[in-house]
Amino acid sequence: MDDCIFCKIIKGEIPSYKVYENGDVLAFLDITPVNSGHTLVISKNHYDNLIDLPEEEAGKLINVIKKITPAIVKATEADGFNLNLNNGSAAGQVINHVHFHIVPRKNNDGYKLWPGHVYPAGEAEIVLEKIKSNL
Amino acid sequence: MDDCIFCKIIKGEIPSYKVYENGDVLAFLDITPVNSGHTLVISKNHYDNLIDLPEEEAGKLINVIKKITPAIVKATEADGFNLNLNNGSAAGQVINHVHFHIVPRKNNDGYKLWPGHVYPAGEAEIVLEKIKSNL
Repeated sequence: MDDCIFCKIIKGEIPSYKVYENGDVLAFLDITPVNSGHTLVISKNHYDNLIDLPEEEAGKLINVIKKITPAIVKATEADGFNLNLNNGSAAGQVINHVHFHIVPRKNNDGYKLWPGHVYPAGEAEIVLEKIKSNL
Repeated sequence: MDDCIFCKIIKGEIPSYKVYENGDVLAFLDITPVNSGHTLVISKNHYDNLIDLPEEEAGKLINVIKKITPAIVKATEADGFNLNLNNGSAAGQVINHVHFHIVPRKNNDGYKLWPGHVYPAGEAEIVLEKIKSNL
């Protein structure tokens, strides 16, 4: 798409730090990383989000993620990583071109996951039925 | 694996709120959700983490995620969702059976993404070369 910053990166109209590239997928450094080595993985074809992304393209993204995460972990001497996809502005998606974040993590690097809570009695059953009725 | 809580859920030895199931993949409610409808998606075969997960199994997980997220969003009247995979204890992985989290999100639900920062001059180039040399 003409006005998409990631499409411009793919076309080379905006420079990027390319980690890996093949015919379908591009991986490049996030320029505002959570931790050093934070990488974005995108499909070269434009899809706004994961819902729109065809299964075949999703598989290609996962294959590249599996290929490059060991290198990212090793290079950054990380102890693990988070793989995140934010779908929709409510979830923190800023660029409407579907992308996975790979965030290298170190023990005690200070980032905390969001806290979970226990369902009030009966609420899990209600939401479960609602989801299943929409499948 | 005998001592894996998710393998016990798959075998029915521990009950779960099953959202969706096919021959390869199980999706069930996280019992300590970040938001109501928070769902875990796992492969029925045991793999510790994403690095160990074969590409074919990863594709099956993504296909189920793509199938069920619209239903989760609709059922919970969410405005978006986060898809997260925590790989390694440093990244918050608690159960060593690879799993994706689908977290329904609402506008202004109070959860903030981790902050990014700008690379100091020259650091992006250094980490990029380290990653590429490990590919």
